[in-house]
Amino acid sequence: MTAAVNRISILALGLIGGSLAKAIKANGFTGEIVAWGRTEKNLQRGVELGVVDRYSLDLADAIAGADVIVIATPTLITADVLQQLALLRKADVLGDEVIITDVASVKGSVLAAAVEAFGEVPVNLVLGHPIAGSEKSGVEAAKADLYVNHRVILTPVATTNPAAVAVVKRLWQLAGAEVVEMDVFEHDEVLAATSHLPHILAYALVDMLATSSEQQNIFRFAAGGFRDFTRIASSDPTMWHDISLANNEALLKMIDSFSGQLSTLRSAIENKDSESIMASFTRAKSARDQFAQMLEKQSKDSSE
Amino acid sequence: MTAAVNRISILALGLIGGSLAKAIKANGFTGEIVAWGRTEKNLQRGVELGVVDRYSLDLADAIAGADVIVIATPTLITADVLQQLALLRKADVLGDEVIITDVASVKGSVLAAAVEAFGEVPVNLVLGHPIAGSEKSGVEAAKADLYVNHRVILTPVATTNPAAVAVVKRLWQLAGAEVVEMDVFEHDEVLAATSHLPHILAYALVDMLATSSEQQNIFRFAAGGFRDFTRIASSDPTMWHDISLANNEALLKMIDSFSGQLSTLRSAIENKDSESIMASFTRAKSARDQFAQMLEKQSKDSSE
Repeated sequence: MTAAVNRISILALGLIGGSLAKAIKANGFTGEIVAWGRTEKNLQRGVELGVVDRYSLDLADAIAGADVIVIATPTLITADVLQQLALLRKADVLGDEVIITDVASVKGSVLAAAVEAFGEVPVNLVLGHPIAGSEKSGVEAAKADLYVNHRVILTPVATTNPAAVAVVKRLWQLAGAEVVEMDVFEHDEVLAATSHLPHILAYALVDMLATSSEQQNIFRFAAGGFRDFTRIASSDPTMWHDISLANNEALLKMIDSFSGQLSTLRSAIENKDSESIMASFTRAKSARDQFAQMLEKQSKDSSE
Repeated sequence: MTAAVNRISILALGLIGGSLAKAIKANGFTGEIVAWGRTEKNLQRGVELGVVDRYSLDLADAIAGADVIVIATPTLITADVLQQLALLRKADVLGDEVIITDVASVKGSVLAAAVEAFGEVPVNLVLGHPIAGSEKSGVEAAKADLYVNHRVILTPVATTNPAAVAVVKRLWQLAGAEVVEMDVFEHDEVLAATSHLPHILAYALVDMLATSSEQQNIFRFAAGGFRDFTRIASSDPTMWHDISLANNEALLKMIDSFSGQLSTLRSAIENKDSESIMASFTRAKSARDQFAQMLEKQSKDSSE
């Protein structure tokens, strides 16, 4: 860890923030980690578990003297926290030099919220998104190795201070993550395609089947392929509701693109157009097989 | 095994037919198993591996003296084989009393093919569908325990001989499967919902992403949820092409039903209608969680 970081404030202590705190402590960070949140019992538990050193229910108190502030709230709450931090900046409680980062799954809406709150993108604001999670949530589920072999995407803008980017990057690397930089807009499009759209499709399919008259038989005769395909429909509805709103535009674009693709394939199936059906399935299989190989290679590389 | 079954003919020796042969031999069937197919090398390999006792490239020879004929070809080939069997019936080579069953993933199209071939549904024809498979294929991949804890759906019609149903049922039970009966039409609807539609959605999504300009980044940043969701897009394109044609009507109906569901959810997302979004995601999560519990209970029950 860089010598400049002596105190880190983690705003909201759940799985994501808690795992980051645990990970950097386990990997040699000797500074202080202070948590802020709304539920005292949860923050107390974080201290008992040794995840953080202390906590405060007062935001000004929790960020006092911090070198880095990590906003680890759910996506839609991030904007509120930015507003509160902007007020503390105006009140001269929060200095310009303090690095602020976040973990939200959508970056464009957080950037817009920052501009609204601060009147500009603060130079030391480095937006980030750890591509990691778990079906579990809460500080009790925090794990020191949650980020190992996972990617963290940082989305600095042209005016972002490179030194601040470097500090946030080292923080995540200390937690075991591979850090990459990406444009905000590109991040939201890529995540809409690989994560947000699949969740919407899984929710839509399971909701459709759950409300069908054949529901009993459907679930009774579903096999392993169905289990894997629908696993993400067990994800937290509130989190995915928030993402649907926060990444609204990119997600709608992806839904439309998918609907067009499905409609084309439907026509091929209706017309029993073997050539088109085979071409689509074969392209998909080939891409999916390549993707599987890529994942296998990654996990081999990272275990070496 | 019932004493009445002394010889079984398996038409096409791949994973499905080979595993059935291995399974019943491993569980006490002492009669003879004869394989028929187009590729002598594959049939020879089946004999070498002890999967079957002997083989013939001639269908009349392969079914001579058989008590049960299992058509274990890919779905679209099943109709051809029924045609050939009907010709052997006309030529008095194949008696009425011989029980015929199949393993195709779609039952309505096979039933129609049987009526076309025989002029009626033969009383000793018992259509069936083992809900089991593997990413591997071929007789080399055959496993004696492929059907253990798996369901086999039989779809007899009103005129089907109950004694024939009982024989086919015992055959699959000997292989370790749980056998259930279902209406042909209902089978095709349920499978369209739980298996055929999810495959189409996975193929459509991966094909869409594979042809996108962001393809590189999309696969690079895809995480575990995407891996599980798209696993079935690695399935055999030919097999799924065949199923798309064989279960055409039910599949189109399911695609339309899904498109309607997706369109409703899209509107809710576009209108930022939090209540509708949350209601849909919550219903889906609840159904998926129940399904997961059901599967867990099944696997516990079957291991007791």
